[in-house]
Amino acid sequence: MHTAGDVRVEERDDPKIIEPTDAIIRLTATCICGSDLWPYRGVEPADHQVMGHEYVGVVEEIGAEVKTVKVGDFVVGSFVISDNTCEICRAGYQSKCVHGEFVAQTIGTQSELARIPHADGTLVATPGQPSSELVPSLLATSDVLGTGWFGAVAAEAGPGKTVAVVGDGAVGLMAVLAARQLGAQRIIAMSRHPERQELARFYGATDIVAERGDEGVARIKDLTQGLGAHSVIEAVGTQESTMQAINITRPGGHMGFVGVNYDVSIPGIDLFFAGIHTHGGPAPVRRFLPELIQLVWDQKIDPGKVFDLTLPLDQAPEGYQAMDERRAVKVLLTL
Amino acid sequence: MHTAGDVRVEERDDPKIIEPTDAIIRLTATCICGSDLWPYRGVEPADHQVMGHEYVGVVEEIGAEVKTVKVGDFVVGSFVISDNTCEICRAGYQSKCVHGEFVAQTIGTQSELARIPHADGTLVATPGQPSSELVPSLLATSDVLGTGWFGAVAAEAGPGKTVAVVGDGAVGLMAVLAARQLGAQRIIAMSRHPERQELARFYGATDIVAERGDEGVARIKDLTQGLGAHSVIEAVGTQESTMQAINITRPGGHMGFVGVNYDVSIPGIDLFFAGIHTHGGPAPVRRFLPELIQLVWDQKIDPGKVFDLTLPLDQAPEGYQAMDERRAVKVLLTL
Repeated sequence: MHTAGDVRVEERDDPKIIEPTDAIIRLTATCICGSDLWPYRGVEPADHQVMGHEYVGVVEEIGAEVKTVKVGDFVVGSFVISDNTCEICRAGYQSKCVHGEFVAQTIGTQSELARIPHADGTLVATPGQPSSELVPSLLATSDVLGTGWFGAVAAEAGPGKTVAVVGDGAVGLMAVLAARQLGAQRIIAMSRHPERQELARFYGATDIVAERGDEGVARIKDLTQGLGAHSVIEAVGTQESTMQAINITRPGGHMGFVGVNYDVSIPGIDLFFAGIHTHGGPAPVRRFLPELIQLVWDQKIDPGKVFDLTLPLDQAPEGYQAMDERRAVKVLLTL
Repeated sequence: MHTAGDVRVEERDDPKIIEPTDAIIRLTATCICGSDLWPYRGVEPADHQVMGHEYVGVVEEIGAEVKTVKVGDFVVGSFVISDNTCEICRAGYQSKCVHGEFVAQTIGTQSELARIPHADGTLVATPGQPSSELVPSLLATSDVLGTGWFGAVAAEAGPGKTVAVVGDGAVGLMAVLAARQLGAQRIIAMSRHPERQELARFYGATDIVAERGDEGVARIKDLTQGLGAHSVIEAVGTQESTMQAINITRPGGHMGFVGVNYDVSIPGIDLFFAGIHTHGGPAPVRRFLPELIQLVWDQKIDPGKVFDLTLPLDQAPEGYQAMDERRAVKVLLTL
C-alpha cells in the first residue's frame, strides 16, 4: 500500500531464513481483512507498507531449530507471531506473547512467499494436504474465524446463554458461528443487510435485530425480559457500536470485543453502572487453531462461506475496492 | 447535606412501614463513606439530601410479608436495596436488582431509624447479638469490606496470583484483606502514606509500591518479570488511577474496579491492546454478606480496624471534615 487507497502488486526479493526458528512458507491463499481498510481509508497511516496477515500455505524451508513443522507441511498461522512457550502464551494469550510481532506490520502475507518467525509457536500443520474446497475455511481460521471465536469465548457464550452479536461483517458472522458451536441457546444477530442476515441465519442466528443505537438497545431489552443479553460480542469497533454492546449486556453479563477504532472512548461511569464483564484485545488465534483446524477438517463448520469474492493475488487492488465499497464481505486472494 | 460542605444533624419524622416488605431498623452504628465526599466536595450535586448508606442495627418493626428477619434481630444490610429473588439477584448481582434502589439517594442511614424496603432481600441477621467490639467490623461488611471484597473477586484474586491494589483508602485496604482471604500469593499495595502502608501490611500486603502513574506502572512491571499483575483492584476512581490499573494488569489478567469519577474516560484502543478482563460496578454486597458476617463473627478478619475515628452521630459534620482533610481514613458514627 503506497498510500491510502493506492494498493499495488509488486515484485519483491524472496524472503530468506534469518533466525533458526524461522520458516518460509509458499502461500496457497491469503485474504483482505476489514482492518486492512483502515489504512486504505486513511483512518490509519499508510506509507509503502506490505499488507496482509491471514495465510495458509506449504512450508518451503525451515530454520535449524524448527521442530513441529517440516518442509511440505500444509500450515495455518496466526496473525500475531508467538513463541507459544512464554508465561503469557501458556496462559492462552499468544497475541500478547513476550516475543509477539504483528504479521501485518512487518511481514505481510498478501504475497507468494512469507518468512514466519517463531514457526513452532506460530504455525499449526493440518492433518494432511487439504482438498481445495477446504482451503477457504482453513484460511478463515487464521484470523476472521479465530477472532470471532475469541469474541464468543470472551463473551462466555455457551449453553443456556442468550448471545447478541453487534456487527454483521465477517468477524460478526464468525462470532455467530462460534456462539452456535459453543452451545448458546439463543443468538441474536444485529444486521440491517438482508444478504448478511441470511448468512447470519445460516451460521446459527435465531433472531435478527435490524435496529441500531438506542432503538437497537431497546429491541434487545424487549427480547430479554428487559435484562439484556448474557453474552455480547462487539464486532464493529466504532463508538456507537461499543456503547451499544455495553448497554445490551445484562448486569453481571460478559461483553467480548475484538477490534476498536482509535477514537473510541468509553465513559468510565457508564461501564461502572452497567456492572458487566469486558474482555477483548487482539485475538489469541494460536490458542484456538488446533481445535478450529480440526472442526474444519471434519467439515463440522464452514467458515469459508464468509468469502464472497475470490480474485487472483494480482487483482488485489480490485479486492480492496470491493470491500471498501461494501460490494464484498470478505475477499479471498488465490495464488 | 444542605449543600456542598454543609452537613447538619436535624430532627426528622420517624420512618414508618409503607410496604409489607419493609422493615424499620434502629441504627447501632453507621459511618461516612468516601463516596459521601463527592457531594461534600461539590463533585456531585447536593441539595438538602439525607446521607449515609452503611448500617447495622436492631429490627424495630417489620411489615406483614417480612419472613427472614424479626423484631429484635441484629442485622446488617447492603447499600443497595434488593429483592434477592429476581434473575439478576440470583446471578449474584443484587446491586443491579430489578427492584434496586440506592440507600444513599432516598433513605439515608446517618440517622437513628431507617426504613429498609425489601427487608428479606436486603438485610442479613447476625448469628446473635454482637459484642460492642464486633460492631465496627460488622458495619464494615455493609459497604467498605463488601466493596473491597467484590473488587478482589472481580479481579479473580486467588491462590498463585500476584495481586496489585491501586489506592490505599478504606476500600483499597479492604481489597488487600480480601485478596489475602482469597488466598493470593503476593499482594502489592500502592500507597504513599506510611500509616496506610502499615495498615496495608496488617491486612496482608506483601509489597508496597509508593510510586504512581508511569513510575508506578514501571515498578509493578519490575516486580512481575515485566508482565504485570494477574489481578488488579482499582480503588481510587480517577482517570490516572484507572489507566494505571489497566496498564499494570498483564495480558489475560483481570482488573476489578469498584468506583469511578464522572469524568473518567477510557480510550478503547488502550483497553483493547491491554488484552485484559475488566469487571466492576456497584458492589453486590448482599451476595457476600452471609460469608463476611460469619468471618467477622468467628473473628477471622478484623475489617473494623479501618475506622480510625469514632464520633457520636451529632458530630457527623466534624467527621465529614476529618475525612475531607484526610485526617481520618474512615469515620464511624455511634448512636
